[in-house]
Amino acid sequence: MSVSVSIVGGSGYTGGELLRLLLGHPKVEVRQATSRSHLGEYVYQVHPNLRKRTQLKFSAPEQLESVEVLFLAQPHGEAQKRIATYAALADRVIDLSADFRLRSAAEYQKWYGQPHAAPEWLEKFVYGLPELHREAIRTANYVSGVGCNATAANLALLPLVKAGMIETEQPIYVEIKVGSSESGAEGNIGSHHAERANVIRTFSAFGHRHTAEVIQEMGLPNVALTMTAVDLVRGALATVHAQVKPGVTTKDLWKAYRAIANENPFVRIVKEQRGVYRVPEPKIVAGSNYADLGFELDEANRHVVSICAIDNLMKGAAGTAVQCLNLMMGWDETLGLEFPGLHPI
Amino acid sequence: MSVSVSIVGGSGYTGGELLRLLLGHPKVEVRQATSRSHLGEYVYQVHPNLRKRTQLKFSAPEQLESVEVLFLAQPHGEAQKRIATYAALADRVIDLSADFRLRSAAEYQKWYGQPHAAPEWLEKFVYGLPELHREAIRTANYVSGVGCNATAANLALLPLVKAGMIETEQPIYVEIKVGSSESGAEGNIGSHHAERANVIRTFSAFGHRHTAEVIQEMGLPNVALTMTAVDLVRGALATVHAQVKPGVTTKDLWKAYRAIANENPFVRIVKEQRGVYRVPEPKIVAGSNYADLGFELDEANRHVVSICAIDNLMKGAAGTAVQCLNLMMGWDETLGLEFPGLHPI
Amino acid sequence: MSVSVSIVGGSGYTGGELLRLLLGHPKVEVRQATSRSHLGEYVYQVHPNLRKRTQLKFSAPEQLESVEVLFLAQPHGEAQKRIATYAALADRVIDLSADFRLRSAAEYQKWYGQPHAAPEWLEKFVYGLPELHREAIRTANYVSGVGCNATAANLALLPLVKAGMIETEQPIYVEIKVGSSESGAEGNIGSHHAERANVIRTFSAFGHRHTAEVIQEMGLPNVALTMTAVDLVRGALATVHAQVKPGVTTKDLWKAYRAIANENPFVRIVKEQRGVYRVPEPKIVAGSNYADLGFELDEANRHVVSICAIDNLMKGAAGTAVQCLNLMMGWDETLGLEFPGLHPI
Amino acid sequence: MSVSVSIVGGSGYTGGELLRLLLGHPKVEVRQATSRSHLGEYVYQVHPNLRKRTQLKFSAPEQLESVEVLFLAQPHGEAQKRIATYAALADRVIDLSADFRLRSAAEYQKWYGQPHAAPEWLEKFVYGLPELHREAIRTANYVSGVGCNATAANLALLPLVKAGMIETEQPIYVEIKVGSSESGAEGNIGSHHAERANVIRTFSAFGHRHTAEVIQEMGLPNVALTMTAVDLVRGALATVHAQVKPGVTTKDLWKAYRAIANENPFVRIVKEQRGVYRVPEPKIVAGSNYADLGFELDEANRHVVSICAIDNLMKGAAGTAVQCLNLMMGWDETLGLEFPGLHPI
Repeated sequence: MSVSVSIVGGSGYTGGELLRLLLGHPKVEVRQATSRSHLGEYVYQVHPNLRKRTQLKFSAPEQLESVEVLFLAQPHGEAQKRIATYAALADRVIDLSADFRLRSAAEYQKWYGQPHAAPEWLEKFVYGLPELHREAIRTANYVSGVGCNATAANLALLPLVKAGMIETEQPIYVEIKVGSSESGAEGNIGSHHAERANVIRTFSAFGHRHTAEVIQEMGLPNVALTMTAVDLVRGALATVHAQVKPGVTTKDLWKAYRAIANENPFVRIVKEQRGVYRVPEPKIVAGSNYADLGFELDEANRHVVSICAIDNLMKGAAGTAVQCLNLMMGWDETLGLEFPGLHPI
Repeated sequence: MSVSVSIVGGSGYTGGELLRLLLGHPKVEVRQATSRSHLGEYVYQVHPNLRKRTQLKFSAPEQLESVEVLFLAQPHGEAQKRIATYAALADRVIDLSADFRLRSAAEYQKWYGQPHAAPEWLEKFVYGLPELHREAIRTANYVSGVGCNATAANLALLPLVKAGMIETEQPIYVEIKVGSSESGAEGNIGSHHAERANVIRTFSAFGHRHTAEVIQEMGLPNVALTMTAVDLVRGALATVHAQVKPGVTTKDLWKAYRAIANENPFVRIVKEQRGVYRVPEPKIVAGSNYADLGFELDEANRHVVSICAIDNLMKGAAGTAVQCLNLMMGWDETLGLEFPGLHPI
Repeated sequence: MSVSVSIVGGSGYTGGELLRLLLGHPKVEVRQATSRSHLGEYVYQVHPNLRKRTQLKFSAPEQLESVEVLFLAQPHGEAQKRIATYAALADRVIDLSADFRLRSAAEYQKWYGQPHAAPEWLEKFVYGLPELHREAIRTANYVSGVGCNATAANLALLPLVKAGMIETEQPIYVEIKVGSSESGAEGNIGSHHAERANVIRTFSAFGHRHTAEVIQEMGLPNVALTMTAVDLVRGALATVHAQVKPGVTTKDLWKAYRAIANENPFVRIVKEQRGVYRVPEPKIVAGSNYADLGFELDEANRHVVSICAIDNLMKGAAGTAVQCLNLMMGWDETLGLEFPGLHPI
Repeated sequence: MSVSVSIVGGSGYTGGELLRLLLGHPKVEVRQATSRSHLGEYVYQVHPNLRKRTQLKFSAPEQLESVEVLFLAQPHGEAQKRIATYAALADRVIDLSADFRLRSAAEYQKWYGQPHAAPEWLEKFVYGLPELHREAIRTANYVSGVGCNATAANLALLPLVKAGMIETEQPIYVEIKVGSSESGAEGNIGSHHAERANVIRTFSAFGHRHTAEVIQEMGLPNVALTMTAVDLVRGALATVHAQVKPGVTTKDLWKAYRAIANENPFVRIVKEQRGVYRVPEPKIVAGSNYADLGFELDEANRHVVSICAIDNLMKGAAGTAVQCLNLMMGWDETLGLEFPGLHPI
């Protein structure tokens, strides 16, 4: 027995990944995918990997019919305007935009620069990162997506924070390097290939909106995210710099990281002594839902470097959303998310 | 009931893809993978995408035990030396090297520069491209792999040759652009990133060994493969230039290409009037077993351009080998080969 | 004594290269550069390599004053509309657009799809490729630029055609691989980095407008240019496939190619037996005005492969235009064009 | 009157850049370049950009003759073994290796893991970064090269340190992203294109040897360099995270940065409000000797982000060495270093 799902906003990159995952999911039937800009086109004309996989065409949002689960993958600001309408169409809603990630309307306004259009809905949503809120997601009807950069940062911080090993009053700097798919399918002034190729471009020193999700979820008041674009399409790497508490050893860190990896099917520790792949690398997780974690500790200076590599469109967006779907439906958490990534790539 | 398989030569790129596919195959149990250079290491230390997927370690070739199907993924020249030994270990052998692709020992010597070590085995092998030899593969015990560049060329030529639409006495030029994974996991003098990045390097004007497979399989005496390295890891694109026979129209070509696509689950036609993805592109099939075909006809000059995009490690190597396994075992041809590729990538 | 020059259309990629070259030219004084879209901005805000090199700001075309030499680097179709105005401002005009490359208004209309706006000017212009028209350029007041792809093709063909070594009635196929800067600073639907990275995309099988320049300049009626985009910013590689006349040997070709290299300061032959750099590669000439030529002959099949690597913005546009300036002014042909390119890159 | 120079170790990437710069330098005559691995080969066979620029062949180190200035560009550890021999050949020696960068033999042993072979020479050398030691270099006979990553870090720190604006007792984290040319022409296990392409690989969390140069030159005891490889050939970007002293404002920083840019011909400030190029980017300085600086200050958190982009082979190696030559000879500091870089690239 399949569960019926539809996707609002199917022509963007996140929508495309959702379509790939849900069309291949053994317990799901995809009913509709909407797109205004590609209305009436075949899905495979926009997402060419899906050719010969589906004959679905993009429909208009107004044509949406009732389904069991509705995924929203629109640009930020859209979902909050029509959330009541969407909630009337489906018992369960998973919104991948930034609209329902923050619990506080004030924080939303601070980081997004305008008042929230449906503040009363904020508390109904669970922040959809299973590594943080697995049990709450299982019973939720409304789950938000996650910011891709926030997810890389949160998962790099999680073992340290959960085990109480870092000085949370000291500055915590998170350097994040990202690929071009983060700018979305529409691109922007700097995403023309001739300008974007070969770059190392620190486009945001601090103040990136995803910082709000790290502050909220990690409880860290003094964290800064610094964003650097590099020449890659898919992938994000977060490198956390923090000070461990006095006495913390490498052995302690191993214990903390192993605990997280053991509890979470999509978290792996990558920390090898030799070979090419000694540390987490985003390219290795491209297309997969894995988050690869690594760390190094300079005990003399109490400087810990914690690293998390993800595919921004998967663990940082669509993959985590499908993982949430699995939890919400009581299925195996990894269903439809089996692709392990490619080597080489 | 699983079928037991082992892989000889599991640490190369083709071996890695075989491992990825066979570990994820619903009807297969992987028993052993051998590697001399990585003996005793975990498979995931060499193929980091397989971390948390398998605890298999590389064993020595001498430790091989009997299995139902044996895959050989060694450097060229190795399989022919020990084919009798391998055949004693398994009823079915699929060799991905160049050793058993050619039917003629004389042709082998001509193209590979040395006599074949086991010429009596050449006729026992079926050339393992299902699009050409599906029925023979179903009943074969010994199947050869395919050359990646030969496969791109053969599939670009197939609709034209099968429908008898091109002048086979005229020169046929096949321009092939390839990624760096073709040079294998060991690399070579020109594969250092600082030298190999950003290249457009026509490293072989003609005389590439894979030409022999195109001559043999397409029956074209006057075909030349010109090889150009470009900045990509996975993928090969073949662009065929040929002369159609008088009177051949675009409509005729559509018919011929559609027939091939309809007969073969992994062949798709990509020929759109608008959008970004109007023609076959290797990046779209990365990780998948698809071969995407396209064409253009200049009716005035009788010049046909036929294009085929593949992932050289998949449709050009490991993917096609698993497709052959499926046929040999009587399973659905697409089993374990469902990954559709990624967009964007 | 400096010669005064101005540039119409200075904010595009070709305009930027002109600015780099002319600002560094020892005998030139750059007076003005126009741009409508960046009017009033500093040149270095658009071409960041020129920061600390010039305080010039973009002016409006209407503000142009008289100069000794006027460079036009506008989108195609613009120069022909106002050529009389421009000619009134400067004794010498070098137009880098496609407007004055073809000698025949009929051919212009055929390839560009609309009538030429100033057909009477066509015969006043010399096709600005010094390797073909050096003497005519020396005395010309009006010189056209060259198509980048046409230049790669023409220079790959030049030794063969000049020495009369190929069958000109047989089909001649020119495979051209190009970087993303060819699509201009504005980009297009397919030039978003996430779509354009990693591509091998044969976007034009035949019928590319630059074909007209090859037909005109080489006198070859049956030549086809096939265009493939690859992952590179700067550079174009043309690979010619043709049939040599009976009896032509590799030694004959060496003689023909050497003659061209000896006559032309920016033509080099790259044909080594060993090492990484055995053949022409566009990345090696990036930023330089060199055209690197190579060839291979399959004597048995009379199949010659001739290769030319250029920087599309230099030898294929701005570099050749400055080379023409040098010839027109009676200066050393290489003045201001001394940058040799980088290794590695 | 030309000054005679020779280069020991001319076949590596740094040696190649030295050759490019010195062959094009108006006041220099290159006499010899040595290479053991390419002995007897033409320089242009190893550095293909120099074809048609020089007929020089690589000679053996034993064949070195006396010259006015000797450049040493060998692997680390070589120069210190024969420094007396080299000093006997030339009055002035510029060593680009790490051998004479540190003033303390003890520090050398600490960071390089073995005792220095010629500790008595350490005090004779001046650390060859003109932005730090311009006057000392003018009168020096022995000048060391600089570490590329150290240079990016030192120049990012210089305005802050010189103006006394940061808390030097707090941890200072320098995130450095680098291209593949840093691993040298020989490459290493991870530099095969199929492995190195598309990477974001934090290969050193701390403890990188160049840290010693930052500690020495900046006087900062608690600085950590974190190294991340990205998909680029040339270029390094350093991103400094530090705490400013109470009361420091953005206006103060502007003043400090402007002072550095005004004093140093190769330092530029890149800090724009709009357009694509708002921050320093290594690709823009590729091939040039510029160091582009930028910064952002979060006044509320006293968090300053300071950025420096360089070409690791130029400002980080050969370019700075030629700049030192110019100073030592009393020439204009920018002689032979005029190439401004390319846009686009």
